[in-house]
Amino acid sequence: MKILTNTTKQVNVNEECDRKGDSSLTSGDCNDQRKQQYEQEQRLKLKLRKIKHKIAIISGKGGVGKSTVTVNLAMAFAINEHKNQVGILDADIHGPCIPKMLGLKGQKLIGGPGGMLFPVTNEQGIKVVSMDFLLPNDEAPVIWRGPLKMKVIQQFLSDVTWGDLDYLFVDLPPGTGDEPLSVMQLIPDIDGVIIVTMPSEVSESVVKKSVTFAKQVGIPVIGIIENMSGFVCPDCGAKIDVFKAGGGKRIADDMAIPYLGSIPLDPKICTDSDGGLSFIVKDKNSPATKAFREIISKIELFLQKTGIEESINL
Amino acid sequence: MKILTNTTKQVNVNEECDRKGDSSLTSGDCNDQRKQQYEQEQRLKLKLRKIKHKIAIISGKGGVGKSTVTVNLAMAFAINEHKNQVGILDADIHGPCIPKMLGLKGQKLIGGPGGMLFPVTNEQGIKVVSMDFLLPNDEAPVIWRGPLKMKVIQQFLSDVTWGDLDYLFVDLPPGTGDEPLSVMQLIPDIDGVIIVTMPSEVSESVVKKSVTFAKQVGIPVIGIIENMSGFVCPDCGAKIDVFKAGGGKRIADDMAIPYLGSIPLDPKICTDSDGGLSFIVKDKNSPATKAFREIISKIELFLQKTGIEESINL
Repeated sequence: MKILTNTTKQVNVNEECDRKGDSSLTSGDCNDQRKQQYEQEQRLKLKLRKIKHKIAIISGKGGVGKSTVTVNLAMAFAINEHKNQVGILDADIHGPCIPKMLGLKGQKLIGGPGGMLFPVTNEQGIKVVSMDFLLPNDEAPVIWRGPLKMKVIQQFLSDVTWGDLDYLFVDLPPGTGDEPLSVMQLIPDIDGVIIVTMPSEVSESVVKKSVTFAKQVGIPVIGIIENMSGFVCPDCGAKIDVFKAGGGKRIADDMAIPYLGSIPLDPKICTDSDGGLSFIVKDKNSPATKAFREIISKIELFLQKTGIEESINL
Repeated sequence: MKILTNTTKQVNVNEECDRKGDSSLTSGDCNDQRKQQYEQEQRLKLKLRKIKHKIAIISGKGGVGKSTVTVNLAMAFAINEHKNQVGILDADIHGPCIPKMLGLKGQKLIGGPGGMLFPVTNEQGIKVVSMDFLLPNDEAPVIWRGPLKMKVIQQFLSDVTWGDLDYLFVDLPPGTGDEPLSVMQLIPDIDGVIIVTMPSEVSESVVKKSVTFAKQVGIPVIGIIENMSGFVCPDCGAKIDVFKAGGGKRIADDMAIPYLGSIPLDPKICTDSDGGLSFIVKDKNSPATKAFREIISKIELFLQKTGIEESINL
């Protein structure tokens, strides 16, 4: 059985039309579609040019807290001098969680002239785009194969009126398949990826794949965050490692990437997420918030450094 | 923006060859490929006919414990009169966890004559096939788009010497995309799906999509399991709902599907999984094992009932 580990082939109109003698699409269809695709690519470039920093949050493993990290990252920047300058692209097409976690359930993307789409904006001015805003209810699944997911992510980037942003955070589903590949292809000047893990060895072995993925597609790894790391019993204060501890640090050491820090397991984080609140706003003095602040400063440092390097390179 | 929620289109040779006038494939190529595909489909049918019960474990949300449930389900049947009659297909191509959880890391699928593949077998005779057995190391990602994933799942089913099995459990990645769709299409006589959730509302809203998915593709829902439900502090005995509680029961009630039970959050489950052990074997008297035994009896009841119904229908 042949294993390909570097398939980055993109499904697009040009390939479809370039098939010699393919008569399922007429020459007119192809010209129209090529024109449409070209226009979309131009819109995409224009939109991305107005966004200073683009950061994706990835993980090989599901349920490690990517969306929690994304929401709190966005909130941290939005409440610190970047109000109305932060966006979140929820690229988890099958299981979009961001709207629920930001208290935006039930909202819809609003359309404008010429196919424009306006993101949903929360109290702190975070602009959010998610598949969830297009579904009739929670129960509706999106039963899509890869090419359709690529298309919708492209539309989310090119047809949404993001405006001028300082930061766009892209929350990706687990794995190294269609969604992460599409995002990396569509946003070639992405600043980097933040990798989230939980401490278990099972998670460790899967999350390592994300680090290799980022390296293979040539995207800088900003660092790794260990979520759900240790638990302090609210009744007796005992420290219990529900999912063990130290997996994040081990990945960082093994794969020579920066370790950003660990976020403790805290029942309040779940309650806050369910209530549409960010824990760093709701529980300002909790150990999780303190840990998260340190993580943020390391991310800011990374962005400043790369910023300086970029200006030097200019 | 148009949303399709029922796209079950399959990428196959016939479609490729049926394109009128497509000269990228010659007529000879097409005949060869059609023949190969036909032979593979026949092998698939033959293989599936020898497996009495096929059950998929799904969830809209990642990290809820699908693989833990799969491993312990397989183990429960393997140690109870079905030794050497149980198989696991790890259909999570990007993040395969089953080998690690069964202590089979580092093993490889062994090839035989005519492209045959032999599954890796554990101590209890559970036959396992996983992408992990084909990768050089933990760090190697599988950067594949959907069609390749469909192909490898098809090969796992048709080219592996599963032999006569009483039960085949299919562990699926989160979501309602390529992998679940492929499995449902490739195993049309699947007994049903078991849905796994964790108690949070965020998980609830996403997992509901899996129920609709199963209903839309016409697969019976055996029931839902709530994992990581409540936590008892090992030091003081206090019960803490780390991820809240009751989400699984609410989904069952809201969507009129059977509720199979809840598995408490227990640090031993993580330690056992990391150590390649099944918690129902390692911790025979734990609350988690007791809860799991009740779940198993409900699943057996479902299979007996559908078995009786099937014989009546004959």
